[in-house]
Amino acid sequence: MAAKDSHPEFLAVAIDAAKKAGDVIRKGFYQTKHVEHKGQVDLVTETDKACEDLIFNHLKEHFPNHKFIGEETTAAYGVTELTHEPTWIVDPLDGTTNFVHGFPFVCVSIGLTIEKVPVVGVVYNPIMDELFTGIHGKGAFLNGNPIKVSSQSELVKSLLCTEAGTKRDKPTVDATTNRINSLLFKVRSLRMCGSCALDLCGIACGRLDLFYELGFGGPWDVAGGAVIVKEAGGVLFDPSGKEFDITAQRVAASNPLLKDAFVEALRESE
Amino acid sequence: MAAKDSHPEFLAVAIDAAKKAGDVIRKGFYQTKHVEHKGQVDLVTETDKACEDLIFNHLKEHFPNHKFIGEETTAAYGVTELTHEPTWIVDPLDGTTNFVHGFPFVCVSIGLTIEKVPVVGVVYNPIMDELFTGIHGKGAFLNGNPIKVSSQSELVKSLLCTEAGTKRDKPTVDATTNRINSLLFKVRSLRMCGSCALDLCGIACGRLDLFYELGFGGPWDVAGGAVIVKEAGGVLFDPSGKEFDITAQRVAASNPLLKDAFVEALRESE
Repeated sequence: MAAKDSHPEFLAVAIDAAKKAGDVIRKGFYQTKHVEHKGQVDLVTETDKACEDLIFNHLKEHFPNHKFIGEETTAAYGVTELTHEPTWIVDPLDGTTNFVHGFPFVCVSIGLTIEKVPVVGVVYNPIMDELFTGIHGKGAFLNGNPIKVSSQSELVKSLLCTEAGTKRDKPTVDATTNRINSLLFKVRSLRMCGSCALDLCGIACGRLDLFYELGFGGPWDVAGGAVIVKEAGGVLFDPSGKEFDITAQRVAASNPLLKDAFVEALRESE
Repeated sequence: MAAKDSHPEFLAVAIDAAKKAGDVIRKGFYQTKHVEHKGQVDLVTETDKACEDLIFNHLKEHFPNHKFIGEETTAAYGVTELTHEPTWIVDPLDGTTNFVHGFPFVCVSIGLTIEKVPVVGVVYNPIMDELFTGIHGKGAFLNGNPIKVSSQSELVKSLLCTEAGTKRDKPTVDATTNRINSLLFKVRSLRMCGSCALDLCGIACGRLDLFYELGFGGPWDVAGGAVIVKEAGGVLFDPSGKEFDITAQRVAASNPLLKDAFVEALRESE
């Protein structure tokens, strides 16, 4: 296992990579409205691919022996198994629908797992210029300032966040809206912002109290945010209440005070 | 009726008022997390009241003969009837739940109606420093740059926005989630951001394609955004497809290409 004192170096290199990719995203973000639909699709694909190449090349240059898992490469080459080796898990552009529409919740998400545990996380929103970072055991930060989860302890005063996902078959959509229906009676209000990684960061900095999502793309959506949430004092778990599994495409997050009530509310919503 | 050549002056004074109120909101926004719950409630109430006083005093100083309708004064003194006189309709702090939670979608909304028609609109988000403005017949702007609605013509590629509202009785919540269920099969995705005025501005600048909300607080939620949407080339209507009524607490907005399909989808969702 890589020594713990390497973590700050890992983070610094990941931040450089995220900022470079952020420049590419920012440029594309303001272009999408000016190209016709086919051009928009190409722009998303090109931006996604360019950012993943850029991030992987940057990381590989510094850490040639590390492993890499990315949304784009996984889409191209099939599922990549997560091992105990130091592994960079990257979503080069989270919030692609927002990117196409010019809705300002888009980000780069970079997480490093060692022995399958996320130890370094970077989530960067280049439009709002918000850089969320975390190192296992060393806290979480927004633009360099320490952040922590909310201190809310009552579900009824909590702000919930989830996503509509991309699947539109009837069982999935019905389950999605039934869950929302059940939860709306128990929380203050609901937000849906279109980026799993930024939703996790919303939990980490206390803007949101409760977040869950089922059926998102893969570990790249949560690997960066997972460290940031934990280091901000939050908890990650499976929406069933079981342990969080980074490969399961299911996640829930909150502060520790809300977890039990949130899990119960999620169970009652099924 | 006030001469049309006065509109730019009305707008300039409204912008000054919105910016002053924005300073107060920005200050409170970063404080809410540091006070206990009772203190948070007080902070919202105080910020709301301080901003409304500040805006009304500023406007009255310049336009002593105009009428005024505000969320706070209406709450205190009952319903204020909208007349044909020049009337400033103000929401000093839209997105109060976001304000309490530190979620960055909060704004000041100021609209001026003359003969019951909204002719000047200002919506200012002091956290993201986004100033949306519009004058009847003279276009809509974001931080001084012209904006227009999206050119999307297909529902299935459209980004929809709505809100969960504040009512939590079973018929209202069921109707809310049934509508969402029906619409999710027809649109690309769904956003819920917690500010009706900013949602309207999202339509105006093309970040969002479709918006509807039923049962919001009052005309102050829509008076500013209505001008901005129309001047950006958008359309406002009742979710039933009937004419938009600023006093009805029901609104839908989109670009003109999507209106018919959106109204049909909304009807099918009832």
